Amino acid sequence: MPRTPQQDRSRETRRKLLDAAVTVLSGQGAAATTVSAVASEAGVSRGAAQHHFATRDVLIEETVTEFFNALTHQLRTTVADLPTGPDGASTEDVVRLVAESFASDSFRAALHVWSAAAGPEGELRDLIIAADSRYAREVHQLMGLALDADLSDHATRELLRMTVDLARGLGLGAVLVDNSEHRRRVIDRWAGILSDGIVRND
Amino acid sequence: MPRTPQQDRSRETRRKLLDAAVTVLSGQGAAATTVSAVASEAGVSRGAAQHHFATRDVLIEETVTEFFNALTHQLRTTVADLPTGPDGASTEDVVRLVAESFASDSFRAALHVWSAAAGPEGELRDLIIAADSRYAREVHQLMGLALDADLSDHATRELLRMTVDLARGLGLGAVLVDNSEHRRRVIDRWAGILSDGIVRND
Repeated sequence: MPRTPQQDRSRETRRKLLDAAVTVLSGQGAAATTVSAVASEAGVSRGAAQHHFATRDVLIEETVTEFFNALTHQLRTTVADLPTGPDGASTEDVVRLVAESFASDSFRAALHVWSAAAGPEGELRDLIIAADSRYAREVHQLMGLALDADLSDHATRELLRMTVDLARGLGLGAVLVDNSEHRRRVIDRWAGILSDGIVRND
Repeated sequence: MPRTPQQDRSRETRRKLLDAAVTVLSGQGAAATTVSAVASEAGVSRGAAQHHFATRDVLIEETVTEFFNALTHQLRTTVADLPTGPDGASTEDVVRLVAESFASDSFRAALHVWSAAAGPEGELRDLIIAADSRYAREVHQLMGLALDADLSDHATRELLRMTVDLARGLGLGAVLVDNSEHRRRVIDRWAGILSDGIVRND
């Protein structure tokens, strides 16, 4: 059944509000992220915003969830584009993909979300920890698949997790300066270490 | 010449104001970090605060500089405590030290400072980039000394820099959850990789 124009508009308004919520959360912090402030940022009436998000808690919860869902979707799509089979993606391709995903604008926004989580607000903190941990698991799974890695091997899992640690650290550096030249060399070197260290499926 | 009680008091007030500035900057962002707000947080009169920091720009500049100086001082002291000589510090000791320094409360505060730097405020951004880059160079130098590494070797310098990338990524993870168990295993494994990879001085 095709969607009605009204359903399309409603969906578009929701999308606008969620994007605006990331902007407000990043720029002004969790305390400033109210339904009114987000409605105003999105150029949507307060009433229309409240139709979508009845309370501030619901708005923040859905914003954080959607934000990490979008990151996951982005990563899945990029991994799906990698070549497969015997001449499939090189370890370097996979490491580059992970490293670059943490050096993106989304990571910059995620940094603000993490920074908010480091604050004292308990509920937001728990929410972000759960969403971030789902995201990290997803990255490990996707890397495992792309590399045909044996995830039952302890050292292999550890090395995949270290790839994410390293990518996060490089991403943090990239927030300040363009470290793409350094990142390129690190990707090269880490791909070698990873390739030697992981166990592949038979 | 011994300091007068008045000089001591002045020094203490300055210290209080700088600590309060880190609290305000971390919690409420750069825009909220005014001389008045910091004076109020420190429990110091606005006049006394302005005696130390005439303008908001001077206050923020000195806060960021002092913050990174304190991080550097902390690291130098810890490195100086490592055993030296032929039975000196192991690579693992040095990696642990760097990793733990990025998982400290200071790093949590630094994350807020970085997060502020990711914002649009140009001047603060340049200041933080310069201070952070001085700090990173200091970490490389100190690691090099502690490991007796040949810093003229390109691959050695790259591996020391990767240690900092990895430590930053682990530190970012530690903001959300206690990852000390994982960190311990990463320190172990990275120390092995580093020890095999770096060139030592003759």
